[in-house]
Amino acid sequence: MTETNHQYKSEFIVRDYECDLQGVVNNANYQHYLEHARHEFLISNGIDFVELHNKGIDLIVTRVEIEYKYPLRSRDKFFVTVDIQREGNARLVFIQDIFRVPDEKLIIRAKVTGVASKKGRPVPPGDIVEKLGL
Amino acid sequence: MTETNHQYKSEFIVRDYECDLQGVVNNANYQHYLEHARHEFLISNGIDFVELHNKGIDLIVTRVEIEYKYPLRSRDKFFVTVDIQREGNARLVFIQDIFRVPDEKLIIRAKVTGVASKKGRPVPPGDIVEKLGL
Amino acid sequence: MTETNHQYKSEFIVRDYECDLQGVVNNANYQHYLEHARHEFLISNGIDFVELHNKGIDLIVTRVEIEYKYPLRSRDKFFVTVDIQREGNARLVFIQDIFRVPDEKLIIRAKVTGVASKKGRPVPPGDIVEKLGL
Amino acid sequence: MTETNHQYKSEFIVRDYECDLQGVVNNANYQHYLEHARHEFLISNGIDFVELHNKGIDLIVTRVEIEYKYPLRSRDKFFVTVDIQREGNARLVFIQDIFRVPDEKLIIRAKVTGVASKKGRPVPPGDIVEKLGL
Repeated sequence: MTETNHQYKSEFIVRDYECDLQGVVNNANYQHYLEHARHEFLISNGIDFVELHNKGIDLIVTRVEIEYKYPLRSRDKFFVTVDIQREGNARLVFIQDIFRVPDEKLIIRAKVTGVASKKGRPVPPGDIVEKLGL
Repeated sequence: MTETNHQYKSEFIVRDYECDLQGVVNNANYQHYLEHARHEFLISNGIDFVELHNKGIDLIVTRVEIEYKYPLRSRDKFFVTVDIQREGNARLVFIQDIFRVPDEKLIIRAKVTGVASKKGRPVPPGDIVEKLGL
Repeated sequence: MTETNHQYKSEFIVRDYECDLQGVVNNANYQHYLEHARHEFLISNGIDFVELHNKGIDLIVTRVEIEYKYPLRSRDKFFVTVDIQREGNARLVFIQDIFRVPDEKLIIRAKVTGVASKKGRPVPPGDIVEKLGL
Repeated sequence: MTETNHQYKSEFIVRDYECDLQGVVNNANYQHYLEHARHEFLISNGIDFVELHNKGIDLIVTRVEIEYKYPLRSRDKFFVTVDIQREGNARLVFIQDIFRVPDEKLIIRAKVTGVASKKGRPVPPGDIVEKLGL
C-alpha cells in the first residue's frame, strides 16, 4: 500500500481538461491512467499492445473493479502502480493503485482482468506470460 | 436482462472518436455512457447533479464494477439501463447494463455505488431517496 | 446563420463529463461534436468513414479554424450544421456552426478543411465528390 | 521552427487511448495537448488558471487555428511550444507548435487567441500581462 515493492509504477500530473465541473478528475479518466500505466508496464517487458493488435492479437479487458477513495484535483502529481498475476489458464489480473505525490495518499484501488483474444476468441497468453515471467 | 422492466433507459449511438486503435469503443468511454444515463435518470426524477453541486452537495461514485462482455463498434446503436436501490443508510447502488440495438446483445454489466457528499463527508441522501421513492 | 438552409444538421445535448472545471464544455470537445456531425453527414450521403479507412483511404483534417462565441453548459441542447464545398482539386471545406436550442444562440463558427489520403498521400476525392454532388 | 528559442516547451508521450480507429491521435486531442502546455507555461510565470477561475476570472479561448501537418502515433514522443504576444488591449495570442521527438518533425502549427473574462465580459489582462512581461 506504499510506493515500494511494485512491479512497475508510472508517474503522472493531472491535466486541467481531465477535471469535470465538480473540480475533480472525472471518474472515467482514472481508467485512462490505469490503461496507460499497464501499456507502459507491458512495453517495459517487451510486449507492445499496438504491435500485437497489428498481428491480430488483442489484449482486452474483461472486468474492472475500482474503489474511489479520494479525488485528484488540478495539477496533483500521482503515480500508478502495476502488479500482475495469472488467474486460471487464460486470465491476467492487474492490481493497480493510484497514490498522490508526495504524501502517498491512496486515491483509488483497482483490479483489472484481461485476456488475449484472436478474432474475438480468447487465446492462451503463452508468449506474454513467458515475457512477464509468470 | 432485456430491454423491458427497467426504471430508466437512455439510447445512444457510438461516435467514431470514442473508438480507439483496436477499432472498438475504448473501455473508459463506457463509464461516460453510464454516467450520462445516470444523470439523465436523476433529472427525470427531479434531481439535478449540477444544481446539487452548486449547493455544495456532490453525488460521488465510490465503487465501480464493470464486466465487459462484447465490444461496441463505430455507429453501433445501444441503450443504457438504470436501476437503483439503497444499500445501508448512505449508499445508492445503480445497476446498469448496456445492450446493443436492435439485437439486444449484452455489451457490459455494471454496478456503480455512490454516496452524497458535503465538504468531502458523506451525508444521508434523504431528499434524493425521497424523490427516487426508495 | 440560422437553423434553415443547411445541407445537414445534427442535434446533441451536452453531457456533464464534457464540461471542465470552468463549468462549461471544454474547447476540445467542440471538435468532437463537429467530427461526429461530419461523419453523420457523410453517412447520409453514402460515405462511410470507417469503411473507407478499412479500404486504405483516410479522410483527414488538414486545417481547423474555430471562433468560440459563447459557451455551452450542462444539459444545453444544440445542433451542429454541416455545409460542404470544394477548394481546388483536392480539398473539401466544411463550414460548421453550432447553435444552442431553442434560442438559436450562435455558439461557435468553424471551418474545417480535409483531404482524402492513401498511404499518407493526398488522392483526388473523386468518388466522394460525386456522391456529394459537388 | 525548431526546438530552440521558445518561451516555453513541454514534453509529452502519446497515450494509446488518445489514438482513434485510424491509428493516429484524434484531432481533438491536440487541443488538449495545447491547453495543457499553455497552463504549464502560465504556472511557470506565476499564473494559476484554476486559482483565477476561483476568483471569478476566467481565461477563455476565443479563436483557434490549427494546421495539421503530420499525425502522431502510439507512443510517439513530442514537445509542445508556447510563445505569447499581445494583440490589441484585450487579446493574448499563443503561437504553439508541436514537434515529434527526436527528429523534430513538425506535427501541427497552431494560433490560439484568448481573453480574460469576468462574469462573461472581457476584462483587461493587466495583472497577467505584467507577470508575463508583455
